[in-house]
Amino acid sequence: MRGNSFGTAFRLTTFGESHGPAIGGVVDGCPAGLKVDMPAIQNELDRRRPGSTPLGTARKESDLVEILSGLWSEAGQPTTDNRQLISLGTPIGFLIRNADAKSEDYAHLKDTFRPGHADRTWEQKFGLRDHRGGGRSSARETACRVVGGAIARQLIAQQGISVQAYVSQVGDIIIGTPHTELDLSAVFSSDVRCPDPAAAERMTQAIEHVRAEGDSLGGVVSCVVKGLPPGLGEPVYDRLDADLAKAMLSINATKGFQIGNGFGAAAMRGSQHNAGPQGGVLGGISDGGDLFFDVAFKPPATIARPQPSTDRSSNAVTVEGTGRHDPCVVPRAVPVVEAMACLVIADHLLRNRTSRS
Amino acid sequence: MRGNSFGTAFRLTTFGESHGPAIGGVVDGCPAGLKVDMPAIQNELDRRRPGSTPLGTARKESDLVEILSGLWSEAGQPTTDNRQLISLGTPIGFLIRNADAKSEDYAHLKDTFRPGHADRTWEQKFGLRDHRGGGRSSARETACRVVGGAIARQLIAQQGISVQAYVSQVGDIIIGTPHTELDLSAVFSSDVRCPDPAAAERMTQAIEHVRAEGDSLGGVVSCVVKGLPPGLGEPVYDRLDADLAKAMLSINATKGFQIGNGFGAAAMRGSQHNAGPQGGVLGGISDGGDLFFDVAFKPPATIARPQPSTDRSSNAVTVEGTGRHDPCVVPRAVPVVEAMACLVIADHLLRNRTSRS
Amino acid sequence: MRGNSFGTAFRLTTFGESHGPAIGGVVDGCPAGLKVDMPAIQNELDRRRPGSTPLGTARKESDLVEILSGLWSEAGQPTTDNRQLISLGTPIGFLIRNADAKSEDYAHLKDTFRPGHADRTWEQKFGLRDHRGGGRSSARETACRVVGGAIARQLIAQQGISVQAYVSQVGDIIIGTPHTELDLSAVFSSDVRCPDPAAAERMTQAIEHVRAEGDSLGGVVSCVVKGLPPGLGEPVYDRLDADLAKAMLSINATKGFQIGNGFGAAAMRGSQHNAGPQGGVLGGISDGGDLFFDVAFKPPATIARPQPSTDRSSNAVTVEGTGRHDPCVVPRAVPVVEAMACLVIADHLLRNRTSRS
Amino acid sequence: MRGNSFGTAFRLTTFGESHGPAIGGVVDGCPAGLKVDMPAIQNELDRRRPGSTPLGTARKESDLVEILSGLWSEAGQPTTDNRQLISLGTPIGFLIRNADAKSEDYAHLKDTFRPGHADRTWEQKFGLRDHRGGGRSSARETACRVVGGAIARQLIAQQGISVQAYVSQVGDIIIGTPHTELDLSAVFSSDVRCPDPAAAERMTQAIEHVRAEGDSLGGVVSCVVKGLPPGLGEPVYDRLDADLAKAMLSINATKGFQIGNGFGAAAMRGSQHNAGPQGGVLGGISDGGDLFFDVAFKPPATIARPQPSTDRSSNAVTVEGTGRHDPCVVPRAVPVVEAMACLVIADHLLRNRTSRS
Repeated sequence: MRGNSFGTAFRLTTFGESHGPAIGGVVDGCPAGLKVDMPAIQNELDRRRPGSTPLGTARKESDLVEILSGLWSEAGQPTTDNRQLISLGTPIGFLIRNADAKSEDYAHLKDTFRPGHADRTWEQKFGLRDHRGGGRSSARETACRVVGGAIARQLIAQQGISVQAYVSQVGDIIIGTPHTELDLSAVFSSDVRCPDPAAAERMTQAIEHVRAEGDSLGGVVSCVVKGLPPGLGEPVYDRLDADLAKAMLSINATKGFQIGNGFGAAAMRGSQHNAGPQGGVLGGISDGGDLFFDVAFKPPATIARPQPSTDRSSNAVTVEGTGRHDPCVVPRAVPVVEAMACLVIADHLLRNRTSRS
Repeated sequence: MRGNSFGTAFRLTTFGESHGPAIGGVVDGCPAGLKVDMPAIQNELDRRRPGSTPLGTARKESDLVEILSGLWSEAGQPTTDNRQLISLGTPIGFLIRNADAKSEDYAHLKDTFRPGHADRTWEQKFGLRDHRGGGRSSARETACRVVGGAIARQLIAQQGISVQAYVSQVGDIIIGTPHTELDLSAVFSSDVRCPDPAAAERMTQAIEHVRAEGDSLGGVVSCVVKGLPPGLGEPVYDRLDADLAKAMLSINATKGFQIGNGFGAAAMRGSQHNAGPQGGVLGGISDGGDLFFDVAFKPPATIARPQPSTDRSSNAVTVEGTGRHDPCVVPRAVPVVEAMACLVIADHLLRNRTSRS
Repeated sequence: MRGNSFGTAFRLTTFGESHGPAIGGVVDGCPAGLKVDMPAIQNELDRRRPGSTPLGTARKESDLVEILSGLWSEAGQPTTDNRQLISLGTPIGFLIRNADAKSEDYAHLKDTFRPGHADRTWEQKFGLRDHRGGGRSSARETACRVVGGAIARQLIAQQGISVQAYVSQVGDIIIGTPHTELDLSAVFSSDVRCPDPAAAERMTQAIEHVRAEGDSLGGVVSCVVKGLPPGLGEPVYDRLDADLAKAMLSINATKGFQIGNGFGAAAMRGSQHNAGPQGGVLGGISDGGDLFFDVAFKPPATIARPQPSTDRSSNAVTVEGTGRHDPCVVPRAVPVVEAMACLVIADHLLRNRTSRS
Repeated sequence: MRGNSFGTAFRLTTFGESHGPAIGGVVDGCPAGLKVDMPAIQNELDRRRPGSTPLGTARKESDLVEILSGLWSEAGQPTTDNRQLISLGTPIGFLIRNADAKSEDYAHLKDTFRPGHADRTWEQKFGLRDHRGGGRSSARETACRVVGGAIARQLIAQQGISVQAYVSQVGDIIIGTPHTELDLSAVFSSDVRCPDPAAAERMTQAIEHVRAEGDSLGGVVSCVVKGLPPGLGEPVYDRLDADLAKAMLSINATKGFQIGNGFGAAAMRGSQHNAGPQGGVLGGISDGGDLFFDVAFKPPATIARPQPSTDRSSNAVTVEGTGRHDPCVVPRAVPVVEAMACLVIADHLLRNRTSRS
């Protein structure tokens, strides 16, 4: 009802405000007997955390995941360097302590609504909010998605499925190469998470440029799923692409989703469209081919410039960012897009186990 | 689990194969005491049905809705011309008989998979399928969405909310005018469902042109929601825009969704994006402004030309459409997009009743 | 949310008022490829319908089920005498027309609340109600459960699971024999649905006696499930016994549920209780043994005597039953208890498919 | 799907193994703006914890709840002695560290299944288990229900609803007085949680007697809900009594549930039953009167005597309890029964907000 869970058979529930004691979550539905590699989970978290790329925020957050349940070791309690934990089939509870929270930085925002943020809408909905760091509306929540997604990834990897996202657009710089011609293993060795070196170079310059100007830039994250078996997706409402669309639009700052030819399909003829790849789904069900989709992100609303806004009493005020924010979120959004895709696929893999008698 | 229901508090479950005895559905969660205007529901259904516009298929389907439960009249059983039925708070069951089904037209498809259709994926999932008219993968299922959406519309209209969609692109013809400058009351008086007369004229020609060539065209449906109160949307996963994205991608033939500036936001700077409208949502919660979004549709896969495909034994075959299909689906998709939007909003209106103590 | 669906992976949604156009339902989640025997479904429905036993109401309702979708025949539309329909994996929609509704019989109840009925509470909840025959609060709704349960039974029978209920108590007459010593195949050849001939004879007399006096009697239905594999049940909330308890208490007129030694276990010592059978579940998970439970039914509230009650304006009134009601519901409740048990087990069989990786 | 969540609009998800790092949970759906009294929550937890009554286990567990999110204080992070925390409308995450876990006590159970426990069924379901202290099948999980229930209690108390349980039977000692004549405020001043002093005295002796003999006893917990408004409960499946039945049968060691006259109703006549109270529900909807129900608990399976069992290889073995277990669970089950009842009522209070338009 309240919307803090995602998935049906493989289900992630998250909690936590940005500057509260901790954020965390519960994965319910992970089948028993899965070998879980904890350093791999922490590695994914490291790719998302503030400070992971020089192009992002200067805030450093260590974001160490602590497993509270659901994973088991003969040797005793689960530890973060164990590569052989076994899932028990019970809910996997985890938390990440909030360490670097400088709540006093936000005192001036207690009665002020930042432009382009959820401050006002959140208060309109609930009548109050935790204003420190955006509270629960902060993108910090996505760290929990990365943990859940990393577990999902290890489950679907058993079936040979891989999920790889990358930055395909920053501002008006668009990667020219289709995904089939990219070396996707190079994504995380690029600061901007773009596997095309020439485009990456120009994206980096564009980000540094707007940062210097106290402004921000939007972008696009693309994602490719390989090894997907045919038959995943639950018609007619829980189609694979519909669930991916929801997953992606549930990420902070996203404004659009397209699969296969996407909005480009609107300008095509049937004879032309039928001849090409369909993006990996037909009728909402995976067709055995590569699945690929794009996610549009708006430019971060917090910029290092004075901006007009209003306070709780509707007075005009001026708001200025602190400079500890990302000038462009797409590099750090790459592991989040992957995580959400892994969650959707894990969910549909399990759901599909009941399709035949 | 299996995916034939949509919504949480206002929930539509549908059933039915295209050429089976009937299609239908159940609306669970409509509050008691709503006055329901049956002719208005039938009117929305009429706008979707084959034959509703000269630009669509030549098939005629009368698509008469029959109410089985949940609506009440002092005078006796509910009838389709009653404008004063009252909802009981109980599930509203309804059906639409399948009348014009020419199943023999599909006999040649029993062992053949049409290109660009769900025939093969459906069979890969379930091991068998009803091949007649696409079975449950047929867009005929969307008639049930229109019925559910029409009830939802009457619920949200009580709060002053209106939902209006229109065709904004057909092939490479794109409406030039923003929605704020369009006369949206003119949508259904245009055969192509485009309120800009000049664009409508060109779109009509483009559709007639591809029809004559035995081909088809894609397009975009845009949608505007006015009167939405602030506070709707359930962070962090069931955001209003995330649920709209899922709703739209669950419609047959859709390939993309964007809200507000959408993919255009990727190329913008923060200073620029903050200054404009956000599309009606901030942080996934409605902000009290107009909500607007676009939905991309691919060109219909069935065209009146021979196309290469495969049969169940993976032999190469040639498939040819019968000519009874739409050359472009967007005109008839307009009421479906509206219906799904109404369902999402009705659901979130009810869910939001529990946000404060 | 509103509560008209039951089950998670195998899910029944029902609709319909007692005297509206029809009652019906949708089974979502039945796996594809199940052979469905329609006469067997109708047979179960016949066992529940009014008039099925001389000990019940004198009302005759034919209760013919019509399949609208989800079942498939090479030969054409599904028919009620086909023993070889195949499930498509799509939702199975069905309806039962309301034929024998004598709505005028209920005109005097429009503003009056019958004692012991849901008339008043229903109106307190929704602000209005369909008073004819109890509207949706009528036990007529259970016919839809029998249809859903009959499909579930055919699914679980594939795994060798059988479900058999019987009347074990009517008023103060209690069957003396444990279920292990009863010939459960004889249940439906007994009018009172009791497989112990001596007890059945006394129960029959007791029912005829209260009928003659214009009164009614309560009773107990017991149920045995054989062939259940170990491992069904989802700890910690969706235990097999917890879901059975909910299923049974959701049936009209039920007041209690117990499994294994039930309330008798409260008076036992651990050394004694451990030594006996546990009722088929341990920790909420089936243990591979026979599962058995009991369901208590109150005496029907409608009796052929004047009873004091109140009307909508809280005036004291006298209400009298028409004599067309059951003096004891347990004989006709036997197929309903079985149906709900079949639904729970089918659901858990499917859910358990995701327990291991 | 996997069953670790309870409730729809007010939803508790729990996690944790008995001897893992921690147990905990997430409450999603608590409306914003509720004043939360933390000491009151801890107080309820104290009533459930081992060592809370001299009649229970000798194990001491401090069971301190730590709030991780969802509750807010102007003064900074939420603390356990704050009586004025405010709910944010966001998920309330919490945990309880496992402190007193003597895992080595359970080493001998790694390959052995205790009689009357879930050891074997859990392993049959998942293929493996955490054997230490019963892992997730341990009643320790109910501490999380008490936390969730304590929050729910504070929500429903706003509407004037109170929930009070007590021990009404231990072994063959049954309280003679109906709840209407008991001083329910005296429950927790009695070690055995029975408000009838004479019965309490005899129950205490009975428990001490079986403890001395190395055996255990079953019992019954009764519960009274006062101040319930009419109209709660969602027909036809999520009736208030059906959801209570599920809630109670989901508690460890329960074997039965009855409401109102319960199994006693089976022996009654309609004329007699109609004249008395209905237990607070009619047709599954609250009627505005006191709601009362009983829950049967079996005797604890772990006793301080050698008992025959089997190991993983099906060899016959002898198992002996350590003496650190409760000889009778009902005194410590009282707060758990209350917690589950509070959760059900909070859920239905919120759900009912959508019943009328």
